[in-house]
Amino acid sequence: MTAHGNTPQIGFPARIERPDGAGRIVLVCEHASNEFPAPWGDLGLTAAQQRAHIAWDPGALGLAQGLAQRLKSCLVHAPVSRLIYDCNRAPDQPGAMAARSEVHDVPGNAALGPEARAARAAAVYLPFHHALHGLLARRLALGLAPVMVTIHSFTPIYMGQRRAVEFGVIHDADPTLARAVLAAALAQTSLRAELNAPYSAVDDVTHTLRLQATPYGLANVMLEIRNDLIATPTAQAEMAAHLAPVLVQALATIETGAAVAPTAKAG
Amino acid sequence: MTAHGNTPQIGFPARIERPDGAGRIVLVCEHASNEFPAPWGDLGLTAAQQRAHIAWDPGALGLAQGLAQRLKSCLVHAPVSRLIYDCNRAPDQPGAMAARSEVHDVPGNAALGPEARAARAAAVYLPFHHALHGLLARRLALGLAPVMVTIHSFTPIYMGQRRAVEFGVIHDADPTLARAVLAAALAQTSLRAELNAPYSAVDDVTHTLRLQATPYGLANVMLEIRNDLIATPTAQAEMAAHLAPVLVQALATIETGAAVAPTAKAG
Repeated sequence: MTAHGNTPQIGFPARIERPDGAGRIVLVCEHASNEFPAPWGDLGLTAAQQRAHIAWDPGALGLAQGLAQRLKSCLVHAPVSRLIYDCNRAPDQPGAMAARSEVHDVPGNAALGPEARAARAAAVYLPFHHALHGLLARRLALGLAPVMVTIHSFTPIYMGQRRAVEFGVIHDADPTLARAVLAAALAQTSLRAELNAPYSAVDDVTHTLRLQATPYGLANVMLEIRNDLIATPTAQAEMAAHLAPVLVQALATIETGAAVAPTAKAG
Repeated sequence: MTAHGNTPQIGFPARIERPDGAGRIVLVCEHASNEFPAPWGDLGLTAAQQRAHIAWDPGALGLAQGLAQRLKSCLVHAPVSRLIYDCNRAPDQPGAMAARSEVHDVPGNAALGPEARAARAAAVYLPFHHALHGLLARRLALGLAPVMVTIHSFTPIYMGQRRAVEFGVIHDADPTLARAVLAAALAQTSLRAELNAPYSAVDDVTHTLRLQATPYGLANVMLEIRNDLIATPTAQAEMAAHLAPVLVQALATIETGAAVAPTAKAG
């Protein structure tokens, strides 16, 4: 049977918190989880690799949950490791089920055939994006004009290079909200914040924005926090306390159409 | 309970034909049906109105089925009238559940509240687009590089004006396939064919292309046939016999990167 037939399928539903949250922002965390459930298991990774940034975005879920609480926002997050399926990658991209991440081989992804790839997409990617899409479509129908913010973290050292940026604000086709977030972050916080750092849309990191926000013309942005700044629940809560007012200010900015310097950078 | 909760919901699954069809083209027909099932019923429309172009695209499903057979393509089509929910419109658009279409009022859509709009989106729009998305995602994961072609028909007389165009080829952001289809139609058929007629993306008619094809970079096009040319099953089959080779030629053109005159019009 094919993955779209009537045979019961394995499936890992997206995790949804506060689905009826009154806040206008819909928070998304594609790399929330480092769980490696059956039928895939650990993909041949060591315990240390399963805890590392290649498996998930450490701290991102805790930060997203702190923001959701402060902003009364709903939050959609993925239930399994990005190495089983990276919900921020399209099913035809190698990175959707990466055979290598940074300097690590992923043995369980080394020889995936087409049907195995399709089965992973059906079990993880589709439930995640259909849950998020259903939530956005409902809010659109209700006239709530949702705004989408995805929450990520990045490793301080990548391929041996130290990254100085602390807070990356990444946009896809529409930079409006990203510019407003960057301006608010520079005004309100002491974070070293930059636009489209440590990577940008050309690195194929904005799939969720393209798939879920752009078709509806929703304001959207991807936020990247350096993971050493959100390594503990306390640090995650403190970062949420810093960033929630930044998002509130940014929303106010785009709603009033206030001008934001398009190339503002951290000093 | 909300529409995304666990309460059983009414739902009208998309109709899928030939889901494993070997052809690269995925055919879509959002306006295939003039069925008005419970719980909505006839929306206060007369029997004549329920048969008219305001309720569906007459002939489009028969043409799409003929193309699917010739091209060995899968076909996804909507099971209820566009006046219950127009699957080619986003849930925040008035045209998704139109209170007026051309010169006709739609009484059952005159005073829809937010929850009624959300319920229709959940019952019709989401099942349709999730079925189509699932099919495309599977083909992407399998490495099949799907191409999306939506099949529509238009009325020969609109707001009292006669339309001369017979075959409209409409694109959204990426005109590549549309230009190739137009060139092939002008070369192979005697149809009066035009680009972006009788309307275009600025008229908000390309939602399915934007939602399903653009995020994946899929080649895509919307085809519009004047409905007097496909009024009978025989005429639909004949039109499919004309247009299937046009699509084959257009695919060959974009695969080889052959140049196509960007502004070609019917003589």
